[in-house]
Amino acid sequence: MAEAAEETTQSESDELRREFVLALESGDPVAAGERVADLHPAEIAHLLESLPAADREPAWEVIRDRFHADVLSYLNDDLRAELLHRLSPEELVEAAQQLDIDDLADVLPDMPDAAIQAVLNSLDDQRRSRLDTALAYPEDSAGGLMNLDAVTVRGNITVDVVLRYLRRLGDLPDATDTLFVVSREGRYLGHLPLSELVTAEPGLTVAEVMRRDLDGIPGETPAHDVAKRFEHRDLISAPVVDTDGTLLGRITIDDVVDVIRDEGEHSFLSMAGVQDEEDMFAPVRASARRRVIWLGLNMVAAFVAARVIGLFEASLQQAVALAVLMPVVASMGGIAGNQTLALVIRGLALDQIGPGNTLKLLRKEITVGLVNGLGLSVLIAGVAWAWFGDPALGGVIALALIINLFMAAVAGTLIPLLLRRLGGDPALGGGMLLMTVTDVTGFGVFLGLATLLLL
Amino acid sequence: MAEAAEETTQSESDELRREFVLALESGDPVAAGERVADLHPAEIAHLLESLPAADREPAWEVIRDRFHADVLSYLNDDLRAELLHRLSPEELVEAAQQLDIDDLADVLPDMPDAAIQAVLNSLDDQRRSRLDTALAYPEDSAGGLMNLDAVTVRGNITVDVVLRYLRRLGDLPDATDTLFVVSREGRYLGHLPLSELVTAEPGLTVAEVMRRDLDGIPGETPAHDVAKRFEHRDLISAPVVDTDGTLLGRITIDDVVDVIRDEGEHSFLSMAGVQDEEDMFAPVRASARRRVIWLGLNMVAAFVAARVIGLFEASLQQAVALAVLMPVVASMGGIAGNQTLALVIRGLALDQIGPGNTLKLLRKEITVGLVNGLGLSVLIAGVAWAWFGDPALGGVIALALIINLFMAAVAGTLIPLLLRRLGGDPALGGGMLLMTVTDVTGFGVFLGLATLLLL
Repeated sequence: MAEAAEETTQSESDELRREFVLALESGDPVAAGERVADLHPAEIAHLLESLPAADREPAWEVIRDRFHADVLSYLNDDLRAELLHRLSPEELVEAAQQLDIDDLADVLPDMPDAAIQAVLNSLDDQRRSRLDTALAYPEDSAGGLMNLDAVTVRGNITVDVVLRYLRRLGDLPDATDTLFVVSREGRYLGHLPLSELVTAEPGLTVAEVMRRDLDGIPGETPAHDVAKRFEHRDLISAPVVDTDGTLLGRITIDDVVDVIRDEGEHSFLSMAGVQDEEDMFAPVRASARRRVIWLGLNMVAAFVAARVIGLFEASLQQAVALAVLMPVVASMGGIAGNQTLALVIRGLALDQIGPGNTLKLLRKEITVGLVNGLGLSVLIAGVAWAWFGDPALGGVIALALIINLFMAAVAGTLIPLLLRRLGGDPALGGGMLLMTVTDVTGFGVFLGLATLLLL
Repeated sequence: MAEAAEETTQSESDELRREFVLALESGDPVAAGERVADLHPAEIAHLLESLPAADREPAWEVIRDRFHADVLSYLNDDLRAELLHRLSPEELVEAAQQLDIDDLADVLPDMPDAAIQAVLNSLDDQRRSRLDTALAYPEDSAGGLMNLDAVTVRGNITVDVVLRYLRRLGDLPDATDTLFVVSREGRYLGHLPLSELVTAEPGLTVAEVMRRDLDGIPGETPAHDVAKRFEHRDLISAPVVDTDGTLLGRITIDDVVDVIRDEGEHSFLSMAGVQDEEDMFAPVRASARRRVIWLGLNMVAAFVAARVIGLFEASLQQAVALAVLMPVVASMGGIAGNQTLALVIRGLALDQIGPGNTLKLLRKEITVGLVNGLGLSVLIAGVAWAWFGDPALGGVIALALIINLFMAAVAGTLIPLLLRRLGGDPALGGGMLLMTVTDVTGFGVFLGLATLLLL
């Protein structure tokens, strides 16, 4: 059921893509434009990202006039930078007028230098000073995530006055689930949910009905911690404050959802040695250059393992069965280590691992490794014995496997903890370090034991 | 800066965990209870998950009385099932009274059979029939995600009447950003955002101010598609309808955030061969049993590769350098293939890949593979030549590497597409199939070429 429905959506996206590309290629930009007229800017960005490089330029020409500003803020960094460099400074100035300040702050650094100055000059004083506030914080901090459109009220007015004020205001910003209560000096004091506002007695003051259960988030708080707070407290919006407690803006759940999505992708892609913002249809040169770094590092690791094998050339010459079986020991260690590694990286991402439980986790992972090592070693020994008719060879490979699964558990647990301690990203590089350990152990222990015991 | 702040939070979680465990272990449950008294149920669930198995039972005793119902709904499936089996049917009945119906529907299937009947009997007719509605849909569908606490209004009443109605209602459910407008028969007609309600003229009718920009989500829609819709449209809550368009309930962003978090974890963990809900401190037996399946499958794959090596025993005997270098070719293919694989799996998850652009993607990945293959093969040939003093050996390894990176690009692109087409999960098993292809190609092509050209 679920699968069938998913198929349908899958083909809907693809259908749209095909119709759009078809219209483009048959030189009918009007039809192409109609096809995407009803889409949300995020959906248009999504469509652009999925187009092969050759189709992107004409596609962009079709949509540039009506949608550019909003679409830009949804694109991945790569593609956005590419498109920004195709627009004239005049077009960029116009786009900047349409963008929310927080989106402009994200886009601005990717613009060509000449355009940046033009855009800055085009802003009025208020927007310019808001932009400065937004640019003062890194992109992946609370200050970088925040919108500057918080609706604020003072504590001494009544609910009725607030309602009249909002009615005069007309449209409220998206995702306004709560109003922020500030002092005369702009300090954040508490918040007044709309759901509270519409149910409160009109005569009460804001100070009487407001809630104090939501602390201001300091602007420099890392995005990861902001996301955790939203998740744990089921928030929809939250206030951002500076060191004095002055309200700077608010973070809304849609931006937090992006953080969570990006974190998941980041771990997934960096484990595989791909940069997280890599665009699916990036130019070949850019893709190749990024990925070759990873391949090059792996080449060094692979030669380290080869060097270990080289230590046993004499043994390999005597018993060619060793060369046939040695990759089995190494690969089993790599797989088992990866299981532990993934579990520990997730635990670190969720802040569920620290000095308080590291040792217990290590002990548990080692036990799991040994249990599986013992079980599988019997099977592997049997296959090796049957294949090469040598029970001693079976014994050696079994022992090597158990030792390698033990090492895999130790390395899988400690490598990410070590990388984190050194200020690195456990998902990036952890897998390669682990593979080096399990390859070296696998080849070295198997060939070493065989040399000692068999030859 | 960001790193330093992250460290602090990291230690805060760990600090809390240590203080809590210390209080437990020194036999002071009151102090332990005080330590967690201010935590949100989600945070308590998070703490429980990070405790080693031995500490969980006493920890649970400390918190069972006050918090159990809510905490249960935040725990991972494993730990929840474990705890549910420790509670008496009477305690489960009491917990069921406290839970929202949609949370109860999630928890119920994990309860012991005896307790399920007791819980069902304890529900009044209204809650029982709501539970039936919630249970009618799979957990990972819109119906499974929905809450049954939507606030509904009719179109013919005025804004003023709605405001008075809400005031009489008192508390609104969490994440109520909009009211749902229904017909007399309960059909979903449109919605009235609170932000609209508080700014609208009191004399207008609901039908006049309501919005029609939000379609009802059919109950059987897969959770993945629900999440996509929330992300693309920046929704906070959305209506769920049955096939007649009758409003069944609403989905709120906090549940969607969980879906997105779970999807990210799922891809990440299944790529590494770990079940996504695996509990960090699951009993050794359960962990070992789950992971051994994956290890066993890998063992088969490793023996397939070994069998290929076995075909060239005579060559290996003649030139032991082949045994030393062959893992380098295989491992480089595995790494390059994994890069492509991860990119394609992400593209599939985002619905950015379909028949419309598969060929172009394949062509791009092959080109990237060949470019990197050509570059790296020069290096690898140089090292092999220098090491073994044989330029022809360098030539053979270079050629084998280029061919293996080509195969890696093809397999990395096509394997996930094929798995998806067969109704499988591209992240699960994709990596192992790929590794089998790159190992077999790497060993086979390198040893085969060497046999043909060198010996």
